[in-house]
Amino acid sequence: MKLLKIIIHALPLFLAGLFLLSPARVRTPVDFPDILGYRTLKCDFHMHTVFSDGNVWPTVRAEEAWRNGLDAIAITDHIEYQPHKADVNPDHNRSFEIASSEGEKLGITMIKGSEITRKMPPGHLNAIFIRDASPLSRDTWQEALAEAAKQDAFIFWNHPGWKGQQPDGVAKWYPEHEEILRQGNLHGIEVVNEREYYPEAHRWCIEKNLTMLSNSDVHDPVFMDYDPDKGDRRAFTLVFAKDASPEAIREALFDRRTVVVFNNLLAGSETWLQEIFSNSVHIKNPTVKLKAGESVYLQIHNKSAVDYKLTRADRIEGLKFTGEITFYAGKTVLLDLKRTAEEIAEPWEVNLNFRVTNLKVNPEEDLKISLPVTIIAG
Amino acid sequence: MKLLKIIIHALPLFLAGLFLLSPARVRTPVDFPDILGYRTLKCDFHMHTVFSDGNVWPTVRAEEAWRNGLDAIAITDHIEYQPHKADVNPDHNRSFEIASSEGEKLGITMIKGSEITRKMPPGHLNAIFIRDASPLSRDTWQEALAEAAKQDAFIFWNHPGWKGQQPDGVAKWYPEHEEILRQGNLHGIEVVNEREYYPEAHRWCIEKNLTMLSNSDVHDPVFMDYDPDKGDRRAFTLVFAKDASPEAIREALFDRRTVVVFNNLLAGSETWLQEIFSNSVHIKNPTVKLKAGESVYLQIHNKSAVDYKLTRADRIEGLKFTGEITFYAGKTVLLDLKRTAEEIAEPWEVNLNFRVTNLKVNPEEDLKISLPVTIIAG
Amino acid sequence: MKLLKIIIHALPLFLAGLFLLSPARVRTPVDFPDILGYRTLKCDFHMHTVFSDGNVWPTVRAEEAWRNGLDAIAITDHIEYQPHKADVNPDHNRSFEIASSEGEKLGITMIKGSEITRKMPPGHLNAIFIRDASPLSRDTWQEALAEAAKQDAFIFWNHPGWKGQQPDGVAKWYPEHEEILRQGNLHGIEVVNEREYYPEAHRWCIEKNLTMLSNSDVHDPVFMDYDPDKGDRRAFTLVFAKDASPEAIREALFDRRTVVVFNNLLAGSETWLQEIFSNSVHIKNPTVKLKAGESVYLQIHNKSAVDYKLTRADRIEGLKFTGEITFYAGKTVLLDLKRTAEEIAEPWEVNLNFRVTNLKVNPEEDLKISLPVTIIAG
Amino acid sequence: MKLLKIIIHALPLFLAGLFLLSPARVRTPVDFPDILGYRTLKCDFHMHTVFSDGNVWPTVRAEEAWRNGLDAIAITDHIEYQPHKADVNPDHNRSFEIASSEGEKLGITMIKGSEITRKMPPGHLNAIFIRDASPLSRDTWQEALAEAAKQDAFIFWNHPGWKGQQPDGVAKWYPEHEEILRQGNLHGIEVVNEREYYPEAHRWCIEKNLTMLSNSDVHDPVFMDYDPDKGDRRAFTLVFAKDASPEAIREALFDRRTVVVFNNLLAGSETWLQEIFSNSVHIKNPTVKLKAGESVYLQIHNKSAVDYKLTRADRIEGLKFTGEITFYAGKTVLLDLKRTAEEIAEPWEVNLNFRVTNLKVNPEEDLKISLPVTIIAG
Repeated sequence: MKLLKIIIHALPLFLAGLFLLSPARVRTPVDFPDILGYRTLKCDFHMHTVFSDGNVWPTVRAEEAWRNGLDAIAITDHIEYQPHKADVNPDHNRSFEIASSEGEKLGITMIKGSEITRKMPPGHLNAIFIRDASPLSRDTWQEALAEAAKQDAFIFWNHPGWKGQQPDGVAKWYPEHEEILRQGNLHGIEVVNEREYYPEAHRWCIEKNLTMLSNSDVHDPVFMDYDPDKGDRRAFTLVFAKDASPEAIREALFDRRTVVVFNNLLAGSETWLQEIFSNSVHIKNPTVKLKAGESVYLQIHNKSAVDYKLTRADRIEGLKFTGEITFYAGKTVLLDLKRTAEEIAEPWEVNLNFRVTNLKVNPEEDLKISLPVTIIAG
Repeated sequence: MKLLKIIIHALPLFLAGLFLLSPARVRTPVDFPDILGYRTLKCDFHMHTVFSDGNVWPTVRAEEAWRNGLDAIAITDHIEYQPHKADVNPDHNRSFEIASSEGEKLGITMIKGSEITRKMPPGHLNAIFIRDASPLSRDTWQEALAEAAKQDAFIFWNHPGWKGQQPDGVAKWYPEHEEILRQGNLHGIEVVNEREYYPEAHRWCIEKNLTMLSNSDVHDPVFMDYDPDKGDRRAFTLVFAKDASPEAIREALFDRRTVVVFNNLLAGSETWLQEIFSNSVHIKNPTVKLKAGESVYLQIHNKSAVDYKLTRADRIEGLKFTGEITFYAGKTVLLDLKRTAEEIAEPWEVNLNFRVTNLKVNPEEDLKISLPVTIIAG
Repeated sequence: MKLLKIIIHALPLFLAGLFLLSPARVRTPVDFPDILGYRTLKCDFHMHTVFSDGNVWPTVRAEEAWRNGLDAIAITDHIEYQPHKADVNPDHNRSFEIASSEGEKLGITMIKGSEITRKMPPGHLNAIFIRDASPLSRDTWQEALAEAAKQDAFIFWNHPGWKGQQPDGVAKWYPEHEEILRQGNLHGIEVVNEREYYPEAHRWCIEKNLTMLSNSDVHDPVFMDYDPDKGDRRAFTLVFAKDASPEAIREALFDRRTVVVFNNLLAGSETWLQEIFSNSVHIKNPTVKLKAGESVYLQIHNKSAVDYKLTRADRIEGLKFTGEITFYAGKTVLLDLKRTAEEIAEPWEVNLNFRVTNLKVNPEEDLKISLPVTIIAG
Repeated sequence: MKLLKIIIHALPLFLAGLFLLSPARVRTPVDFPDILGYRTLKCDFHMHTVFSDGNVWPTVRAEEAWRNGLDAIAITDHIEYQPHKADVNPDHNRSFEIASSEGEKLGITMIKGSEITRKMPPGHLNAIFIRDASPLSRDTWQEALAEAAKQDAFIFWNHPGWKGQQPDGVAKWYPEHEEILRQGNLHGIEVVNEREYYPEAHRWCIEKNLTMLSNSDVHDPVFMDYDPDKGDRRAFTLVFAKDASPEAIREALFDRRTVVVFNNLLAGSETWLQEIFSNSVHIKNPTVKLKAGESVYLQIHNKSAVDYKLTRADRIEGLKFTGEITFYAGKTVLLDLKRTAEEIAEPWEVNLNFRVTNLKVNPEEDLKISLPVTIIAG
């Protein structure tokens, strides 16, 4: 009886500390709002397994994607580079075949792909939504791309500024890329690969109407390279698609409905970024009573998975407000608003204008946003 | 030009790592669903400042509450114990006066309270929703409680099993408590105080129709004792109220609409716990195709701020499913479901029955829940 | 000039936050003191790769071991179970051949091993320090063990209470194990495998003079299953060896110079545990001035990588001291010591006796330790 | 018997996860090597309590310092600014009196100080090692400084670029500062205050032979503003002193034996920084065998509490080695070294020269260091 009491006492101490501490088999959501009638899918279209120069079995890629909160992935083992082939089946279709049933069981959309791996120019290109990888093994890159095109693949140029092929790290547009583009066989470019951002690629996508992509190109186990619990996530692409089917993703990619993401950096068209921002951020008290000389806190909640870093764009006569503020992911913050004007016509509807310095509409330009507030004399 | 390019390259590396790392002035939501037409408020009705034996200025308590995601607090400095009075104003109303404007600016409901601090029996009691703390300073606890009652206070017994007054740690019901109860001056008991749970108090609340409370009784800065980022939060009480006004909270407390929370331990009536659980947990694929001999994953998402630890309550003929599973706070997990029956009448609607071992309807009994699933032959 | 100043200002803000946040290519030391003239090596003798049913390329195991602070590993792919053999070379020696050069480059001692994988009894056994894995592929386990013995292998029984072979989770000593032991072919048992501890195995090692082992048996990437930054580490074995060579480790294993470790659980002989503890823990102020009725803090530092949880074993007349205390890994804590005796003969040399409840000399018995303190009248 | 077995099984699961997760009463060491015969003390000479405009009781400052791994602190409440004086004793000596016994019990050296709080110029100055704070309350700052000097105080200028007094954030040397310096009453300047670094102050300390200081100036609870577990620590000053007594610290300050620290930024003279670096960093394999065309890893361990960020300063004919590397605090990292020279005279003793970009000998100049390596033909 006494013992029982002790155990009952002890029990809750037990229960009290049971939060998730170590990696368990859990999926951590990566929250972005659905926008403009589309689902906002998190996708990574570039990764490797033991079937080329990667270091994991293909099923691991499906499990990692599920845990990382992704919706769709493409395993893209190299066609021309198979350093493990003395020990591993060189069949270019095997990594997809092995991973796909695991992916389906976990609800991850599995897209078939391969990396056409040539010296620069034109460098490395991924072909995804292919039907059979084996015919991509050709003597020339021209033939390989023609075959990918024949299979209706979506083709994109990988890591254009990778120092392995561009020692100065600056992406360069060669005549060969012009040729591929002219032939209709270049549909997108990686603006972000692994941990690198290529401003040249960002500009080319805008100028040439190409799809922006951001991919991890992961070779090792994901959790060896990234720790999402500490806010360090693999690069991925937001795809605005009608649903999570391969067909809908393919249609969205060809229609350039993407935003690239690497941790807190987002790059994409003004439309997509504006929608993502405004559907992520909520002012809890948009109408405030404010006497002359007094100040209030605007409470602003950001439900998305990225921090937004804002810098005031304009001043407003008769008001003072915080000039630099970060809307932290999943948190509420305080924006200090002070009325300096003695007299106001009320309700006074003002727009607090900011630039979001980690949301890039082009390499040199931040997204501009407005926070609408209504001020009533106290 | 070259330099500009370098800066543009460098910039995103900058942006890429800007997640929230250190304590900033942010409010971290503590998600619990609103239920049965009520708002689910997170409240802490017991804490101290330098005005009694605490170690922080009163405004700190409002700021901490805001950061901790709470909705309402009561600062309850001791009436009879003021070790800093050689240096600090002994006026019993000052800590509330100082803290309340800061609390209002932050949107925290500030409730006026005091701790009547006597030797056992009857020990320490909090009176909250008082109008003036000074008259609570009386020769006898009987007079002090009578004064609190005169002010229409909600009165509860603090840490009944505290070893400072009950060396064996077992709460004891004295004739004095019976007397206070009979006079209508005992409305609730702390089932959890700081890091202690009192099963006796839990039972008394059920038997005697008293309100269950869980409070931090914090004396030091909260962030010195708890690290919410690591899943260690101060104790608090869920109050199911019409709104966040003091009046609505008072009405809810007198109506016993509470659940006590300490980290992952929840205690309360079956009704409240069932509603909290079922509004927190969502089966993403409640209808599954399942051939004989095959298995699928049920994907179960828990949007609340607590982990639920489940143990299978019944087996089901013709099905096998995971016997022990934790629905982690804010995560999706996989429940493995295997069809062993050769023949089934479809759609087969089954309830997977579990006990939630950290949700206690009384000290000896777990909440029982059902997960409804529809099985279709593949 | 102005710009320069801004850059100089900005620069340190940059530098100020550069702590290690995400997984980088770093080795995190796991501190245990060297004892009794031996080096204390951290070793994991059981793990898998794609060459049996594991999910990583063999080189990953070397890199993980280096990052995890280990000194030596054995990859022990299954002889009889190769589910990837349609795609991966079935040669039993390949995983070692591939991993060993990577291990050597990183300074990890690579030990050749295989898992003889049979149904219970006798279940699974690892043979390590073998020269050629191929001849272990035999019709009967008797032949396989004889071959391992011929190669002078160190042979141990894996996960004796694994539910896959012992559904009730209780390890059972079969006549087959008696036979292997009698033939001199059983040298150790896993007391810990993955996240399971087997008290029966612990007792058998003591009774039958066998070596205690603790191994991860990891199949997936280590960082998918464990997060050392949050204090969750793979199981490993402390080996007390003359140096880190395979020969010295082999000699130490045959001489039973091991302690098993899983997070904060340590099991082993009283001698090893006592040495580990006393060389980890340091009282910073072992001589204290103490007047009657007053108290001091003993400041106790634990430089090892495990927490020690202590419970007072005896009381001392004339002194009061903390009854429950944890010496946290890498931290200093305070042990409160109060002199109640009015008169003392000084210097008063006392031993504060505790049990260390996470250091097990057998499944039912904690290590007993003493903290020597000298008290001088104030 | 059966039950016992279950409990014994369960017990280690318990023990296995007992690492320190939440804030406990522990001291976390902040490792810096002792150098040149001195002890390297971690000190914070600027902080506030409820006795001026701070928000904690004075004893909290001692406890925080102990937990933060500091050796000495000065509480420096404002003389001229006491916003809580309606409620708190205005005696300028009280915060020291209250905190000092707690500090002594914890082994923290407590230094008496006050902040002379005037408008700019000369702004705010701290006087520490004073005997009586009350006489510092004077009509003019000249009188206050004269009194501090009479008490043999060490006097330093606080946050010279603080925007509250220098709206453009650039520190300015006024004639008043020249006057104080000429009178011998200015002994040091804060190069770092809270989270700001002042390059002008850094230069002035070098030019005018003044002591460099780095202080937190903390007003709120430390753990509300900083999370050392995530690598975010309050600013502090390294003092190289004969021992931890107030006298030895005073002597060291007057002799300018300091280095300022804010997270990973260190600033100070070349001598101190060089000693700190070279006594923190250890090459585990300084002699390597290396054939032409091959590469090895140098394993480099950094036992200090700061990361060192290195950039290669020179190339070496016949060798290639990593150009950018971070020696993470408490970790071992790999520096890749490749021999390109066909022929070498051996042993070849080389110095790998780097700049440490977060160790500043002046605002524009990094510390230069050499890593000596001996290469032997393989």
